Amino acid sequence: MLEAPQTHSMTGHGAATALVRRLMKSVGDPDIAVRLWDESEFPVTEREPVAVLEFREPKALRRLLASPSVGFGECYTEGLLEVHGDFLAFANEITRALSRKQAGGYHWPRLKSWLHALRQNTPLRATRNARHHYDLDNDFYRLWLDEHMVYTCAYYESEATDLAAAQVAKLDHVCRKLDLQPGMTVVEAGCGWGALALHMAEHYGVRVHAYNVSKAQVGWARERAAERGLDDRVRFVLDDYRSIDRRCNRFVSVGMLEHVGPANYRVLGDLVKRVLEPDGLALVHSIGRSHPRPADAWIRKYIFPGGHIPSLGEMAAIFEPNRFTVLDVENLRLHYARTCADWLANFEAVADRVTERFDEAFTRMWRLYLAGASAGFRSGTLQLYQVVFAHGNSNDVPRTRAYMYPG
Amino acid sequence: MLEAPQTHSMTGHGAATALVRRLMKSVGDPDIAVRLWDESEFPVTEREPVAVLEFREPKALRRLLASPSVGFGECYTEGLLEVHGDFLAFANEITRALSRKQAGGYHWPRLKSWLHALRQNTPLRATRNARHHYDLDNDFYRLWLDEHMVYTCAYYESEATDLAAAQVAKLDHVCRKLDLQPGMTVVEAGCGWGALALHMAEHYGVRVHAYNVSKAQVGWARERAAERGLDDRVRFVLDDYRSIDRRCNRFVSVGMLEHVGPANYRVLGDLVKRVLEPDGLALVHSIGRSHPRPADAWIRKYIFPGGHIPSLGEMAAIFEPNRFTVLDVENLRLHYARTCADWLANFEAVADRVTERFDEAFTRMWRLYLAGASAGFRSGTLQLYQVVFAHGNSNDVPRTRAYMYPG
Repeated sequence: MLEAPQTHSMTGHGAATALVRRLMKSVGDPDIAVRLWDESEFPVTEREPVAVLEFREPKALRRLLASPSVGFGECYTEGLLEVHGDFLAFANEITRALSRKQAGGYHWPRLKSWLHALRQNTPLRATRNARHHYDLDNDFYRLWLDEHMVYTCAYYESEATDLAAAQVAKLDHVCRKLDLQPGMTVVEAGCGWGALALHMAEHYGVRVHAYNVSKAQVGWARERAAERGLDDRVRFVLDDYRSIDRRCNRFVSVGMLEHVGPANYRVLGDLVKRVLEPDGLALVHSIGRSHPRPADAWIRKYIFPGGHIPSLGEMAAIFEPNRFTVLDVENLRLHYARTCADWLANFEAVADRVTERFDEAFTRMWRLYLAGASAGFRSGTLQLYQVVFAHGNSNDVPRTRAYMYPG
Repeated sequence: MLEAPQTHSMTGHGAATALVRRLMKSVGDPDIAVRLWDESEFPVTEREPVAVLEFREPKALRRLLASPSVGFGECYTEGLLEVHGDFLAFANEITRALSRKQAGGYHWPRLKSWLHALRQNTPLRATRNARHHYDLDNDFYRLWLDEHMVYTCAYYESEATDLAAAQVAKLDHVCRKLDLQPGMTVVEAGCGWGALALHMAEHYGVRVHAYNVSKAQVGWARERAAERGLDDRVRFVLDDYRSIDRRCNRFVSVGMLEHVGPANYRVLGDLVKRVLEPDGLALVHSIGRSHPRPADAWIRKYIFPGGHIPSLGEMAAIFEPNRFTVLDVENLRLHYARTCADWLANFEAVADRVTERFDEAFTRMWRLYLAGASAGFRSGTLQLYQVVFAHGNSNDVPRTRAYMYPG
């Protein structure tokens, strides 16, 4: 399919340039420059390029043409592609161009999303998928997350807020939305390293049962509970969310829905219906979409196997069959763009140590993932929804949001 | 089908009682008492009845058995049924029992809702439907609405807030959510008697183009604009929302979506996509459902022909095909329960004058509609969603909601 670029002849160079231009057009003509293996360089548009994308070998171009998303991810990881300049600015520019280019269709991505959603996440597969990412290595995440190990969207009350403060602010934002009162029982589905569970117990006087299928995370969380003297009030359970059978006043799930898969939204809704007290409140916090579309192919292959990012319409499958009242939806996508950018900055500061522990390919893969996620939230390809809901006939709900915003 | 109740024999009485009990079971056994045409009376449950429902003639029972919703509405209107006791308490109890009874199915009401949604609201039909209700008589609505003639859900900042203050608070709540700035251009689709348009222009320094198909309302609104010296900044346009072609910084629609019909949600979304500036914000305020189901048959026949009350999942058809970012959803159903109850109290205070102007049947129909609506919001059969959204790639959006809640 692509013979010419394998030679360094002028003909080969011309053909390669034409193919790069075609590729760039297919991703919406980003404002970048391209450098080829023969060191020739040209800008894609007439505007100032934000970075230079280098094709180090002809096969990188071939692989991108064959499969843009997986091809890009793999070639960057392997070092066949290099980015010169600010990597996040590059990711933002590519994503901006792509999202403008893709602004057309609706029914095709929706159909693809639906087909993709048929894939069932059984408890076994869900456990394997989650472990793929979260069992990686606590020490690895400690290198670049905040001290409480919160691996979900932070809440920046102002531009000046830093990551650590923004993560604590997020925990409080969630707790306030849940209107936690001392003595309440909370069930948390998918608790990561336990930051929210511990925060709720310590600062809001509630008892928490927190579920997670990752051994590494639960082990860490239990240690923190013991250290902080909270192990009588927080129980970390190494189990799938589908095993939850404990009645609670509040149900919360932060950053788990992305792994649940649409085929199980009804299961999750039925579960909340069953365990939430009649006057209870529930909160689901999840990455989302503005419209149904399947997850990025590279992300599915390397970062989150089995993941699906739902639109609000798709999320309705959690709430509507059980007639929950949706009380409040907040979109925090720009907070997640900033969170991922902060993670990336932390990550870059320790990139050498990451490469030492793992290898260069691992470091490059994670750089791409973090920058790509930030760019996705920045461009509107990704959203972040916090949804508060209650039983459909419960009038024990806050009348206004004033309680969330104490003066 | 129902012979016996037409006689006053003991057999007839026994059969009628059995049929009433069957009817009461089918609506979830409300805590009321029933009085028959022979003055016999019995409670439906063992709990204290909140009111007495009187069947004044056997045919009332026949008509209710044949068609519970339309039958009840028509028989109450015609005086074949009477309610003794607090009418709103009666409506709340019936609705509570009914919604508990109906808590089962999901797919059947969803299918019915979808079939119902196939009905197209053409501009002509939409105009006729809206005029059915809103052209009625300005003086009629003046009798029981607040002084600004706001005929949508109010916002009660506290229990002590009265209707007039709550309606002004609602206007401000909407204006704050829209982050209005002086000099902006606002398009309002479905402006009622113009209260929001006039409020925005007077207190937030914006220019407004407000659309409505009701001549009576637009006439009234234009008079108020002239009186308040706002006619250079607010233009009331007697036209269907589909004619809107004016670019705007803000798009707002309060209480119109109920009349749009699901077949036109995409049309409405496309319209906003076309007219809203790239950095604009839009707000849609609508009665909603926790799950898809068709509108009540009596309401469709007598109050809002052509109306459909959407679930959030159904509303996604406005946002998702155009990749809007949904920024904020707030559910104000308990505010609408209170609003309708306040309207009903005002209405009862002038019921004699209403009967004088129209007739007894009209007064009874409106009592039932206002009480039924309040009960619907109270029981969770009805919701009230305020949705703020923006173009999918716009980052000119508020980062937090702090701007809505000035300390």
